[in-house]
Amino acid sequence: MTGTEKTERGGGRRRRGRRGGGDETPALKQQPFRQPRMIYAPMRAVSDDQVEQIHQASLDVLQEIGMDFLHPEAKALLKDAGADVDPGSDRVRFDRQLVESVIGLAPSQFTLHARNPAHDLTFGGDHIVYCAAASAPNCADRAGGRRPGNLEDFRRFLKLGQMLNAVHMWGGYTVEPTDVHASVRHLVALQDMLTLTDKAIHAYSLGTERIQDGIEMARIARGIDDATLEREPSVISIINTSSPLRFDTPMLDGVMQLARRGQAICLTPFTLAGAMAPVTLAGALVQQNAEALAGLVISQTTKPGTPFVYGGFTSNVDMKSGAPAFGTPEAMRTALIGGQLARRYGLPYRSSNVNAANTLDAQAAYETVFSLWGAVMGGVNMLKHGLGWMEGGLHTSFEKFVMDADILQMVAEFLTPVEVNRDSLALDAMREVGPGGHFFGCAHTQERYRTAFYPPMVSDWRNYESWEEAGSPTAYDRTETLYRQILESYEAPPMDPAAAEELQAFVARRTEAGGAPTDF
Amino acid sequence: MTGTEKTERGGGRRRRGRRGGGDETPALKQQPFRQPRMIYAPMRAVSDDQVEQIHQASLDVLQEIGMDFLHPEAKALLKDAGADVDPGSDRVRFDRQLVESVIGLAPSQFTLHARNPAHDLTFGGDHIVYCAAASAPNCADRAGGRRPGNLEDFRRFLKLGQMLNAVHMWGGYTVEPTDVHASVRHLVALQDMLTLTDKAIHAYSLGTERIQDGIEMARIARGIDDATLEREPSVISIINTSSPLRFDTPMLDGVMQLARRGQAICLTPFTLAGAMAPVTLAGALVQQNAEALAGLVISQTTKPGTPFVYGGFTSNVDMKSGAPAFGTPEAMRTALIGGQLARRYGLPYRSSNVNAANTLDAQAAYETVFSLWGAVMGGVNMLKHGLGWMEGGLHTSFEKFVMDADILQMVAEFLTPVEVNRDSLALDAMREVGPGGHFFGCAHTQERYRTAFYPPMVSDWRNYESWEEAGSPTAYDRTETLYRQILESYEAPPMDPAAAEELQAFVARRTEAGGAPTDF
Repeated sequence: MTGTEKTERGGGRRRRGRRGGGDETPALKQQPFRQPRMIYAPMRAVSDDQVEQIHQASLDVLQEIGMDFLHPEAKALLKDAGADVDPGSDRVRFDRQLVESVIGLAPSQFTLHARNPAHDLTFGGDHIVYCAAASAPNCADRAGGRRPGNLEDFRRFLKLGQMLNAVHMWGGYTVEPTDVHASVRHLVALQDMLTLTDKAIHAYSLGTERIQDGIEMARIARGIDDATLEREPSVISIINTSSPLRFDTPMLDGVMQLARRGQAICLTPFTLAGAMAPVTLAGALVQQNAEALAGLVISQTTKPGTPFVYGGFTSNVDMKSGAPAFGTPEAMRTALIGGQLARRYGLPYRSSNVNAANTLDAQAAYETVFSLWGAVMGGVNMLKHGLGWMEGGLHTSFEKFVMDADILQMVAEFLTPVEVNRDSLALDAMREVGPGGHFFGCAHTQERYRTAFYPPMVSDWRNYESWEEAGSPTAYDRTETLYRQILESYEAPPMDPAAAEELQAFVARRTEAGGAPTDF
Repeated sequence: MTGTEKTERGGGRRRRGRRGGGDETPALKQQPFRQPRMIYAPMRAVSDDQVEQIHQASLDVLQEIGMDFLHPEAKALLKDAGADVDPGSDRVRFDRQLVESVIGLAPSQFTLHARNPAHDLTFGGDHIVYCAAASAPNCADRAGGRRPGNLEDFRRFLKLGQMLNAVHMWGGYTVEPTDVHASVRHLVALQDMLTLTDKAIHAYSLGTERIQDGIEMARIARGIDDATLEREPSVISIINTSSPLRFDTPMLDGVMQLARRGQAICLTPFTLAGAMAPVTLAGALVQQNAEALAGLVISQTTKPGTPFVYGGFTSNVDMKSGAPAFGTPEAMRTALIGGQLARRYGLPYRSSNVNAANTLDAQAAYETVFSLWGAVMGGVNMLKHGLGWMEGGLHTSFEKFVMDADILQMVAEFLTPVEVNRDSLALDAMREVGPGGHFFGCAHTQERYRTAFYPPMVSDWRNYESWEEAGSPTAYDRTETLYRQILESYEAPPMDPAAAEELQAFVARRTEAGGAPTDF
């Protein structure tokens, strides 16, 4: 069957001849630190008219139903701004003009400053930020299994993330260091984050003291004064609503502290359709949007111009069990529509790289890439949980962290424009090779092959026989090896000794004083 | 920390309370047979000007370099049509006007008829066809390992694909039944395909006799006369060029036979950048496009109006080993640009669901979904290798076949419009539930929850403890169970006994006559 040797039929000789390849030990062949940019037009899952219907319906929700604000000071602020505050309850209703009046006050683009200026990040426009996974109570690697979060594992994630260029910033604690007392956990964790790494940080809005401490620590680590800090956002914090339609006290503490100090807010309603939000996607989005707009009102009322990211986290639940599902076709579509809404308001957009798998199997991978498909095509600016998330957020995986670094680099490469010019059109190469030849050896190939294609860190492209001989490693095996190699290669980023000392003194003083309250 | 129980932090109570779920045995919860439609605007990876540059450069290739046509009759036809045919070689050069003159002759949309009219398929426009994987020399399941293709496994794939609604048609032999002699393999395999299943078929263009037999067998199975067959395409065949720039004899036999009988052609250059095509993506696309246009010329010269699908298969190789790579960021972008080119010519577009993994691990899944991301966003009409492809096409996997059915159903669901209307905006549900409540029990949820969300076949959404108790099954485990269940539930589709008898007689007669030549 000589005629078919170069067809796509798997039996073709050329492909059967696939060579074993050279060094196939997984290795850290990473790309430079860079924010990808969305070069395509974001996808529109609904028409502009439908976006407007969702917008109007959320204004109806805020006007008729209102939201509960569990915070006297926030209620007072909103009352002054013209909201209808029920004196006998926490309910606040918003006239639609009030909501409309704050749209446009927040910047459509801003910079989040890192301790290392080379790691400063642009939020908004067509810029994308990859955040490490955050807030998991457990972590796992294959050797040690799944275990409650602890400081040692927390620090291992910090070191991994410092080494991996696909980590642009910390989205929170990759795993919760639960062995550190809650009163001082933020001090210990943020000190580690600001010394073991030099990337931009997130601090949790869990009451006034914690967020104040976080902001102050970022200022000290950067070695800047208050005025500079207030001009240059150096902390971002996720503000989750307590869906449906409620803002809890510690989150509102956070909103107001952040806004007053010029720091950035990412407001993300946790609207799981069928559980904390209506079962219909449009309804869940109306609620998401109402809650986000209420967050916009309180942030811009506290201080106009507060950097504000519109967060979309609308997914669905498994209606059999109530378990949250991620990477679903429903979540993909709400991710697209969330982006349309964020752009409607001229705000940077946050979405996530999430999955619900319990182990690093094919499900983890396909739910992950489906999540990314929705987020990226929706025009995401801030990709939360970009690396390491598993099990609906209940654990982070060291192996998945590395796999996601590879996957996110592939997304960045996908978002790199294809060059079309005289050189790349390659007519001369085709003239040289001609019909029936091959391009391996031609000058055009030789000059370019080393950098022509993205070199994956995890994918195993050896032929079956070589792969089998090597013990049939799966992607899970390869990431296990790789993550340990990366950890071993960790080098602490340089830090001004004075800043490190000041940070240490601050933590000691605050610890001495008892840390932050744990009874809010 | 009562304030955080409903945030996205993994430690929140509500999510820790995730129930175990009911019956979590994998089950065939499939969607009805339906062709998804591309409801989004396909993505444009290059500008219209750049598409034009690629187009013009491929006309340069065809005019200056030309292509080799290893077929005297084809050369004679092309000469009559005005091509510059070198008398001393197989080289044919095409004036750009000749190429331009055939653009627009092939239909932008056509129907491929199946034995069961309920399985007729629309090619073109925004319609998508999912094809089973094709042409692998080996197959694998976990229990039996990887093994050379054989008739028994071939038939098991046919039965699986008949039962799975995500299989719209056969793209060829899911695994090559290599234990059947090559002279009669097409007779045996197509008889099985046309009796064990009632879906639309592909027949291989491996010389005149085989493709004539395939067309005749499709006619007999459908119980129609020659004139109807010629009006109603009932066979499609992939025509691969022998890249670079060569058409082999058996493929050209196929083109001419198919065109004369009004059957459909999918012309797919096998342009792996860096191997059989230039190392630059733009250059590989120029070559892909030149070869596809040459195929368009020969098909439309043979018979104007021949249904023609523009195939894109441009990927890259691993430059270390020369092994083909799939699901890469390079392949995603060429898939997008391939779609732009196909639309430039008003032709249906073929792309693929491919990966290079050796086992059903996370790599297999992420490369798969990356492939689909490129194909679907590129506006694919015919998705080849939709189910079961592994290892760069060197084996098909029973477990992957089922996983892909689930993944493709998710893509179809992703492509379903989100309803935005009074009902779905759900203001009444939000009024009923109000701040701080939940939607599980409200009427709006109760009326809809059974069908509100896509129910996956493979994904395991149980909580970690229940999942661990069940033996920590991976997606691979679940698909293993599932594919066996589906095979056990196989029921043969009804068939007109007269047609079955006629088909049997035809096969017997052709077998008696020695089948098809094997020395072409």
